[in-house]
Amino acid sequence: MSYDPRAARYLCFGEAKRAFAEGRDTPRALLERCLDTIARLEPTIRAFVSLDIARARADADAAAARWRDARPLSPVDGMPIGVKDCYDVAGFPTAVNSRMFQDDIAAIDAAHVDALRRGGGIILGKTTTTELTMALPAPTWNPWDTTRTPGGSSSGSAAAVAAGMIPLGTGSQVRGSIIRPASICGVVGMKPTYGALNRNGGFDPSPSLNHLGFLAGTLSDAWEVAHHIAVTVGGDPGFPALEGGPDLPPALRPARLARQYTYGWSQTDDASKRAFEDFLERLAAAGVEVLEPGASATLQAYEDATARTSEFFFDVMLWEFRWPLRAWRDLRPGTLSVAIEGFIDKAVQMTPEQHRCAAARREELRARHRALAGKVDGFVTLAHIGPGQKGQPAVGTPWYNDASSAIGAPTFNLPLLAIEDVPLGVQIMGFEGGDAALASLARWMLERFGSPAVGAAA
Amino acid sequence: MSYDPRAARYLCFGEAKRAFAEGRDTPRALLERCLDTIARLEPTIRAFVSLDIARARADADAAAARWRDARPLSPVDGMPIGVKDCYDVAGFPTAVNSRMFQDDIAAIDAAHVDALRRGGGIILGKTTTTELTMALPAPTWNPWDTTRTPGGSSSGSAAAVAAGMIPLGTGSQVRGSIIRPASICGVVGMKPTYGALNRNGGFDPSPSLNHLGFLAGTLSDAWEVAHHIAVTVGGDPGFPALEGGPDLPPALRPARLARQYTYGWSQTDDASKRAFEDFLERLAAAGVEVLEPGASATLQAYEDATARTSEFFFDVMLWEFRWPLRAWRDLRPGTLSVAIEGFIDKAVQMTPEQHRCAAARREELRARHRALAGKVDGFVTLAHIGPGQKGQPAVGTPWYNDASSAIGAPTFNLPLLAIEDVPLGVQIMGFEGGDAALASLARWMLERFGSPAVGAAA
Repeated sequence: MSYDPRAARYLCFGEAKRAFAEGRDTPRALLERCLDTIARLEPTIRAFVSLDIARARADADAAAARWRDARPLSPVDGMPIGVKDCYDVAGFPTAVNSRMFQDDIAAIDAAHVDALRRGGGIILGKTTTTELTMALPAPTWNPWDTTRTPGGSSSGSAAAVAAGMIPLGTGSQVRGSIIRPASICGVVGMKPTYGALNRNGGFDPSPSLNHLGFLAGTLSDAWEVAHHIAVTVGGDPGFPALEGGPDLPPALRPARLARQYTYGWSQTDDASKRAFEDFLERLAAAGVEVLEPGASATLQAYEDATARTSEFFFDVMLWEFRWPLRAWRDLRPGTLSVAIEGFIDKAVQMTPEQHRCAAARREELRARHRALAGKVDGFVTLAHIGPGQKGQPAVGTPWYNDASSAIGAPTFNLPLLAIEDVPLGVQIMGFEGGDAALASLARWMLERFGSPAVGAAA
Repeated sequence: MSYDPRAARYLCFGEAKRAFAEGRDTPRALLERCLDTIARLEPTIRAFVSLDIARARADADAAAARWRDARPLSPVDGMPIGVKDCYDVAGFPTAVNSRMFQDDIAAIDAAHVDALRRGGGIILGKTTTTELTMALPAPTWNPWDTTRTPGGSSSGSAAAVAAGMIPLGTGSQVRGSIIRPASICGVVGMKPTYGALNRNGGFDPSPSLNHLGFLAGTLSDAWEVAHHIAVTVGGDPGFPALEGGPDLPPALRPARLARQYTYGWSQTDDASKRAFEDFLERLAAAGVEVLEPGASATLQAYEDATARTSEFFFDVMLWEFRWPLRAWRDLRPGTLSVAIEGFIDKAVQMTPEQHRCAAARREELRARHRALAGKVDGFVTLAHIGPGQKGQPAVGTPWYNDASSAIGAPTFNLPLLAIEDVPLGVQIMGFEGGDAALASLARWMLERFGSPAVGAAA
């Protein structure tokens, strides 16, 4: 099955809702179609860790009754959703693809899961991830080419959406873990401003870097889910919740975008480079001024800093998981991969000064980014160094995602390019708190380039 | 037993360490003295939820061997410590004085407990607290008058230290829960800058307000423990860790302190007011310029804002525990007090706009506080509206603690006053990140007014 970004259509809950309202469809019927697709494709794709079919059917029937009475609980009422297996779903283990946690059953739902359920959302199952969201790959394959990785660490949510099993799955991003699999599977990836959505309730080894976000068939579904969570359980405690209204903001053409290279460009294959250069030409033809880093000293300094993000990123991560992972390893020795064991060993050897230095460099990068507010409307780059590689162990590289992860600014993956008949995404990043502005820009881009992924709002 | 702030001596680990080093004492002997005191007083005081005597003895023997070899692991090696029962200690429930959590056994130690153990600290037991750190009182009594409350919510740690059972207990503060019981029990209370010490691992319903801190017999012990935790497990992820060296900083007389009234002054009894006015005169006589709020418009605006902290404080708290407490209540109905049920009902009714407004008012208060940096060296006020009341249900009021809790600036309780033969504390507050500067000021005050609570550094 060859991928074409203008033709690839996934499940769109916004469309389904119109049909619910008009009596042409029901949440239960939608769920059954999802279950049919899962029955057909899951043996190959393996996007789910677990399914809760009985509860999902009961919840879908309850949602159907509400839609029949024209009284849905919220904009997500009746939506089938997959939850990444780093978040808690009551009654299921939060195993994070690790033997270490395989028997730890969650008592209550994570904040966002709680919000979705209270709005009538249907938690259909838990989606696969990499070991502790960072090491051994999920057993999952890419729906567009089942010999390739779906990317990670939000592997299962990306694959399930691309396979048409669900309209939306939740994801988490410390270092590209939403944007990367979204790019590789050709779906919308939404990583909001750091702290804008409550990510509590689950495995969270890098709290100052971790974001809750979404892998979705359409931009409008991602936005509506994000808004519902923000108004129900807020942002992370101490941080402003996502701003903006319940509907996807109107499309707005950006006047000026900064093109970024980061360390990723040097690692990108020629075909992907050509596709991106061609995309930039199409942007220019559409009237967008695309600035190269050399356009100003401020921009160049920022570009140089982003290319060196990996010099400090890992130290910030390591220091934060030093306490919990060493303690868990002591409690349950022999349950971790060699890779994670190595990370913990490195973390244990770190000094507070190393962490202080790494944190200061992150602050410096953030300041350089903030200094560009008002000068450009956003940043555009590839979302990954190329299409998903062959084989599961290659879950992807973080090079294009380091800066957007470290800065905490809102970032989307837009499924706009194809390479070797499989997807490649365009990554756009805005400014902290500017999620709605970036969504307007993302909507304009999808509409302009004929992508069905804009969704029901189109 | 009548309380005299110049005569009240508690256990001082700094002193014990000198004796360990000189072979005059051992960690095991110190522990046994603690256990003797506990055996004698605990039936009346009831400061502990649980004790782990067998492990404590084994750990004390190991510490003794290290001191014999003159190779202590850290400045806390051999220190008997109580951990507030809102933090995780592996193998014990984190019950937080609630039937809701009474059977939830912690798998790994909280970050600070892990740091203390790795430094050779002896976790002797878990200390009592109020229900979910905010409602039904602990079953604990005040060692200085066993008909009175020890204050809350860090009730057990304050009482255990004041009873001479342990040199230091850990505490948490959302809204005065360290400073208040420290005042009422006449011990040192240390609430560091928000985020300066890793508070993770335990019950944390108000993350943007919650602080890890200490109830200690001496200022020097509190500082050394804080520093050890900061260099071992850092601050809260994303926040700078406590600055400063391993030893209590040198005493430094403040040039200028702002006197605060807050809402507390109008609620304070006359004897306590007189004692504080007298204290301010002694400060002035010692060469400290004490500014009344009217001294400048900036100061007056800040004072006015602090007096109104309670108008928004509760809304910030409620919004943050809305998700977890509603979900826990649904899971385990009938396990909470009427008070907590009421809080949850209020939280459920809150709108995102109410929270946004409350958070904005907190930011405004913080900005007013920061605007005074460089203009004054700190803030001085009472730590509580008077001595601890008779009877357990009266755990104390937050009026003097609201501002220092909401702002996140470092705050100490200094046991410098006596009313009705029981303790009353002086509260000093500095500026965010200025923990070491405030410790210098605190040390000067204790030394100047002849308090033994300065500890071994004196």
